[in-house]
Amino acid sequence: MDGITLNDLAHQTDATLHGDGSVVITGVGSLTGAGEGEISFLISKKHRNELAETAASAVIISADDLEICPTNALVSDNPHLTYAKIANLLFPFPAYQGGVHSTAIVDESADIDPSAWIGPGAIIGRAVKIGVDCYIGPGCVIEPGCIMGDGCRLVARVTLCRGTRLGQRVQIHPGAVLGSDGFGYAKDNTQWVKVPQLGIVEVGDDVEIGANVAIDRGALGNTIIGDRVKLDNLIHMAHNVEIGDDTAIAGCVGFAGSTKVGKQCTMGGMCSISGHLEIGDNVHFTGRSMVTRSHKKPGVYSGGLPTMPNRDWLRAIAHLKRFDTLVRRVDELETRLKDNSEQK
Amino acid sequence: MDGITLNDLAHQTDATLHGDGSVVITGVGSLTGAGEGEISFLISKKHRNELAETAASAVIISADDLEICPTNALVSDNPHLTYAKIANLLFPFPAYQGGVHSTAIVDESADIDPSAWIGPGAIIGRAVKIGVDCYIGPGCVIEPGCIMGDGCRLVARVTLCRGTRLGQRVQIHPGAVLGSDGFGYAKDNTQWVKVPQLGIVEVGDDVEIGANVAIDRGALGNTIIGDRVKLDNLIHMAHNVEIGDDTAIAGCVGFAGSTKVGKQCTMGGMCSISGHLEIGDNVHFTGRSMVTRSHKKPGVYSGGLPTMPNRDWLRAIAHLKRFDTLVRRVDELETRLKDNSEQK
Amino acid sequence: MDGITLNDLAHQTDATLHGDGSVVITGVGSLTGAGEGEISFLISKKHRNELAETAASAVIISADDLEICPTNALVSDNPHLTYAKIANLLFPFPAYQGGVHSTAIVDESADIDPSAWIGPGAIIGRAVKIGVDCYIGPGCVIEPGCIMGDGCRLVARVTLCRGTRLGQRVQIHPGAVLGSDGFGYAKDNTQWVKVPQLGIVEVGDDVEIGANVAIDRGALGNTIIGDRVKLDNLIHMAHNVEIGDDTAIAGCVGFAGSTKVGKQCTMGGMCSISGHLEIGDNVHFTGRSMVTRSHKKPGVYSGGLPTMPNRDWLRAIAHLKRFDTLVRRVDELETRLKDNSEQK
Repeated sequence: MDGITLNDLAHQTDATLHGDGSVVITGVGSLTGAGEGEISFLISKKHRNELAETAASAVIISADDLEICPTNALVSDNPHLTYAKIANLLFPFPAYQGGVHSTAIVDESADIDPSAWIGPGAIIGRAVKIGVDCYIGPGCVIEPGCIMGDGCRLVARVTLCRGTRLGQRVQIHPGAVLGSDGFGYAKDNTQWVKVPQLGIVEVGDDVEIGANVAIDRGALGNTIIGDRVKLDNLIHMAHNVEIGDDTAIAGCVGFAGSTKVGKQCTMGGMCSISGHLEIGDNVHFTGRSMVTRSHKKPGVYSGGLPTMPNRDWLRAIAHLKRFDTLVRRVDELETRLKDNSEQK
Repeated sequence: MDGITLNDLAHQTDATLHGDGSVVITGVGSLTGAGEGEISFLISKKHRNELAETAASAVIISADDLEICPTNALVSDNPHLTYAKIANLLFPFPAYQGGVHSTAIVDESADIDPSAWIGPGAIIGRAVKIGVDCYIGPGCVIEPGCIMGDGCRLVARVTLCRGTRLGQRVQIHPGAVLGSDGFGYAKDNTQWVKVPQLGIVEVGDDVEIGANVAIDRGALGNTIIGDRVKLDNLIHMAHNVEIGDDTAIAGCVGFAGSTKVGKQCTMGGMCSISGHLEIGDNVHFTGRSMVTRSHKKPGVYSGGLPTMPNRDWLRAIAHLKRFDTLVRRVDELETRLKDNSEQK
Repeated sequence: MDGITLNDLAHQTDATLHGDGSVVITGVGSLTGAGEGEISFLISKKHRNELAETAASAVIISADDLEICPTNALVSDNPHLTYAKIANLLFPFPAYQGGVHSTAIVDESADIDPSAWIGPGAIIGRAVKIGVDCYIGPGCVIEPGCIMGDGCRLVARVTLCRGTRLGQRVQIHPGAVLGSDGFGYAKDNTQWVKVPQLGIVEVGDDVEIGANVAIDRGALGNTIIGDRVKLDNLIHMAHNVEIGDDTAIAGCVGFAGSTKVGKQCTMGGMCSISGHLEIGDNVHFTGRSMVTRSHKKPGVYSGGLPTMPNRDWLRAIAHLKRFDTLVRRVDELETRLKDNSEQK
């Protein structure tokens, strides 16, 4: 890597340079790990001590950390964001050329832009459309009728089932499945009869989807992922869920069907979201929330029973199971105390 | 699509026709979305208002909704079931012919019915048997010794490990893994020694298995999935679990080893089921249930702490951790009140 | 299978033989299922009744069960461990020869030991190094720059993303993904900007990783899995998590980023572990623990609200939501009782 001067990095990220702008940056590192030619950053006051002793050639900091900064600095109102931009400049996605690997299996009816790369062992079905500069990694399966916009990147072994539509610049990590049949059955006495799942999955622009995620197609109508939504690993999204723009969802979250989530929401890991709910904009669920009702008002909501020493937990659970009794005892005490007072 | 007349649909689903039986139906839609040539349905009284204004060419309804029905109707005791049957008639699985795609990799010892389709990039191991009309989608891996009955459909990128046995008409969605080694170790001081996992996974008839599910083979003896069991996405099933006929399990449920589940049970999403339990027939766990004991009696069981505003939750958890103290305070109050009474 | 004599089994596992050492063992079975030529074992006193009636040709037992043993016995201090060793002797991993299947897609720059097997449809990227006796199963994708030590076994359809490093004798089950991008974003007003994920995943020796697991690469620095760590199915591990040697983690556990777990820990199924925590050595979380704080001291910790009959649960949850009120009522009662006493 040839590197980029601090001057150029400052210019391209709207940061303010303090120090020697001719220094060439070739890498990034933590405050304690970075050395010659590397840039680091301070995003948590917790690590302020480390700033004073860093050997990095430059650091990205807030203005109020300048006084203790021992090296060249890029000052920014949002050092984390500036770091993200700089790391993207220094470490772009590995270059690739358009074309189809000799071992890829491409249906002749597929419409693939010549600038797109179809990797080894990838399987592209009938009537698939793939836009400009897309990257379809090794072992991906793109079923008939899928459409993807420009600049999408399917890392490896991603499955898009029939008719899935991706917007532009969608990134999907290995093992993810979009468009599998939803869990839809009608009851016929004791047996379940499959309800055909006739909708698709529609994904907006600039979405990122983690490893081994599963997003079901709509039953009737579509499952819809808004623009700039970020999904972590191993998320389960049932049929006809809709996720609003800019919402970010951490790993292992599970959604039952037809729930609608607003914009700019966040969900911590392993939340469970029941079906047919409405979650408003700017609603935030902390990790492990068990969401069984609609939450239309912005706010922070939480659930779950955090870890205690096993003995204490066993006692707490035993008390919980007798909670009714305890409440009745307090009722009784109040009644008796009232009687006592009245008798006097 | 040529469509099917209402007369024929009524006849094939045992529904009662009210209106013009010569109308040709080519599609389905919601009450508010369906138009000319489409059939809709009313399965929740919540949507009754929409029935009166639907533009659908026909609707599937209960007899007591006939009076407000503005269009042709198929009347049924179970409109959801009738809809499922009609949607299956209108939208059968896309046609395919028997044969082996030129890029499939098939061991010469495999016994594949000529009516079965082996898709592009599928890998079929030694001594595999594949029945009549099976569909093995792109990128599936069928390891040596697997046997599947007639009419199975593996959508894409499914893995069946050595010796897995499927009944008839089993459907499996992308990313599912059947027959992986169970989590079995013996302790040797501080280290874990792998216990060879020698059983297999046996799946009954008419089972459906969701995307990215993982079902481990038996340690000794088999992991057994009964007939007509339905498994949603991202379920983890450990070695030697047994699931009874007609049981339906929603997404993200996890089972520890050797638990036996009865027939016609249901489990909501993200339930956790401990090992070596016995769950009887007709037991129902609502979503997120933490099942740590056997439940042999039919019934509905629940667990988990649903979401509250974050402040309230923090207070509730703090109280829970001091539950012991509260109970002692109530004990004390009762004693003192008793003493007071006796002193009088 | 030719079988192994009891004499040889005793010798190779340091067990003490009681009975006829010339008996040839060809298989294993449960106490009730094993017959001629098979060996069984007793590892739970619960099954002691079955020992007296077993038809197995031999059993692995503790010395104190010898008196009721009706057949040949291998006596061991740890029958489960002895069983594991014997089952490994009787059922070694199926033999394979070194070489590359004709349908594997191997970059010419890859450095593959001639003793390693590269299975059908496997895809091996640029500059990959594969050690002695490795087994790369069908459909695996090994991205550029990955390095694996001797004796690794990737069962099928495993994905190793760029630069992943495996130690020796690592076993990985189908669908697992190592090295996917972590969930790292900087906030730019309402939008999320991706932070490039520049670290890798480093795995120690003798690690086993379950089906459909997802382990993210480090953001800066690496995600590290220690020696002899065992991971069950469908585990999510975020960027920069570190797991200490000999720790075993059951299915569906999810880790947020940068948490460090000590040595010889165990975690039951579906635990959730928040980010940036420190978990000490010999810490044990029972299933479904919600771990939101560091736990540095050895011990057993638990969380979660186990299942109750639905009606009882609804009441318990309602009480929990009014916990504050109950505590205030008890405060009040204490105050009034104190006042009463003082008035007297």
